Amino acid sequence: MKILVFVELLGTISFAFSGAVIAMRHRLDAFGILIITFISSIGGGTLRDILIGSTPVSWMLDIYLVYTILATYFAAIFFHNKLLKLKNIFFWMDTFGLSLVTILAINKGIACNLHPLVCIALGTISGCFGGVLRDIVLNEIPVLFKENLYATACIAGGIIYFFSVFFTAETYVSSILACGTIIFMRFGADHYKWNLPKFK
Amino acid sequence: MKILVFVELLGTISFAFSGAVIAMRHRLDAFGILIITFISSIGGGTLRDILIGSTPVSWMLDIYLVYTILATYFAAIFFHNKLLKLKNIFFWMDTFGLSLVTILAINKGIACNLHPLVCIALGTISGCFGGVLRDIVLNEIPVLFKENLYATACIAGGIIYFFSVFFTAETYVSSILACGTIIFMRFGADHYKWNLPKFK
Amino acid sequence: MKILVFVELLGTISFAFSGAVIAMRHRLDAFGILIITFISSIGGGTLRDILIGSTPVSWMLDIYLVYTILATYFAAIFFHNKLLKLKNIFFWMDTFGLSLVTILAINKGIACNLHPLVCIALGTISGCFGGVLRDIVLNEIPVLFKENLYATACIAGGIIYFFSVFFTAETYVSSILACGTIIFMRFGADHYKWNLPKFK
Repeated sequence: MKILVFVELLGTISFAFSGAVIAMRHRLDAFGILIITFISSIGGGTLRDILIGSTPVSWMLDIYLVYTILATYFAAIFFHNKLLKLKNIFFWMDTFGLSLVTILAINKGIACNLHPLVCIALGTISGCFGGVLRDIVLNEIPVLFKENLYATACIAGGIIYFFSVFFTAETYVSSILACGTIIFMRFGADHYKWNLPKFK
Repeated sequence: MKILVFVELLGTISFAFSGAVIAMRHRLDAFGILIITFISSIGGGTLRDILIGSTPVSWMLDIYLVYTILATYFAAIFFHNKLLKLKNIFFWMDTFGLSLVTILAINKGIACNLHPLVCIALGTISGCFGGVLRDIVLNEIPVLFKENLYATACIAGGIIYFFSVFFTAETYVSSILACGTIIFMRFGADHYKWNLPKFK
Repeated sequence: MKILVFVELLGTISFAFSGAVIAMRHRLDAFGILIITFISSIGGGTLRDILIGSTPVSWMLDIYLVYTILATYFAAIFFHNKLLKLKNIFFWMDTFGLSLVTILAINKGIACNLHPLVCIALGTISGCFGGVLRDIVLNEIPVLFKENLYATACIAGGIIYFFSVFFTAETYVSSILACGTIIFMRFGADHYKWNLPKFK
């Protein structure tokens, strides 16, 4: 399990860092950047915990997560010019983190006896709503609703997970298939500009 | 009770459909429309459940409600041109649904031993905050705060409910009177342009 | 304890009044102003209660608080021209109220066995997020993120509180020191234009 905790942490760092950079672009002060950094990294998980009634919400009980986000915040403020050059590394951290956060939330939903469709919704909320809350606070229409296959990847991963559980009944195989789906779709959206249709 | 479940479902469909149409006008992609459809239909009830601590929130435990919203979403995407001609039908679905959602939430508040004023607030939140959350996510000042007697109708219905309970003690009579008040005020606001005063 | 309840009430009144005035400037109708008044005064405490799972949230159980906010709302609507001249009084009500709300939330966090850093975050959320939610609903970038030492004062007060608890172990001395810190920083920010650095 150590490797999973590590990958999830990478995802948190990547969510936090992208939040900090976007906040700096909006010319917020040091405190505003701190809040946006936190909202970006823990917003999705917090909403997940509130919806299923798991309180105090998880980041409040995990001081090492708080330290990690604080460290990311200071790193973003002092070294953002250098860190922004590592764009590819952040893309992969974000993608692996997203896939893990989604699958972990699906498992939380299963533990609450929720219907598979609801579990998929919960996984997608956990993966994506940090960014949605960040955009709401920054007074923009959430980029998630307009741009690419971010949330769709979570939904597809969730569907693959439950299909695979239905046919094989091995949780870890299903998890790997689901994570693979999310990573594959994110990669496709990023490199081949896959996109969803729009309507008038 | 069957008829009540049916009327509440009509309200949910109407909230969901209006959300989907507004999201399409904002040129969101298919996923963005899905989210706005859900937020519009279940946002108010979700906030109600979070405030009183009834978790997992109700839509997570009601898979038929989720199916209904999904069906409304697909109907809105594929047939919105035809459905938009049924404007009057949607007005009445929305109005009956709103009155029921409000009274049901008031009863939830009573079951939690909350003060009548707080129950009325809870009813109004349930009826109106789906639309408020939708507008916040879409980056607009909530239409609710500017336009017509939507929320005021919920408040008036709640006041009538408790006055009537105080004088008659028959819950179903009070519920009918309260629903009638809400429907009457919505009709007046729509047809005779009743409105609240503004201040500078 | 009577004096503390009174000071906290002053803070609530001041949060509510400033919310009402800002809502009137946005030309909302009477209901919109009512909602913004409530969100400004109870938003922070509501978020605090939701995060730690203390439900029904506190304002729902405290009808006198609801009466106080309603009275402030009517006072703001009918006498705002006269009340706005009392700017200094509102500054001090707001500052004292903020310091108390922050310290009370920190104590709630301690009662939940949360880590000091998390308690400080909870205190800051309680003190500041009413205004953040108000600005989000009104479709503005939260003034908190751009302007002055409002939230920083809460954080500083929280740090002083835990340092002082660490060294003296007397809760009431620590509380006084922490409140003093918050009041001092707010005064400095207001009169000497103290501010946080920005980043590009």
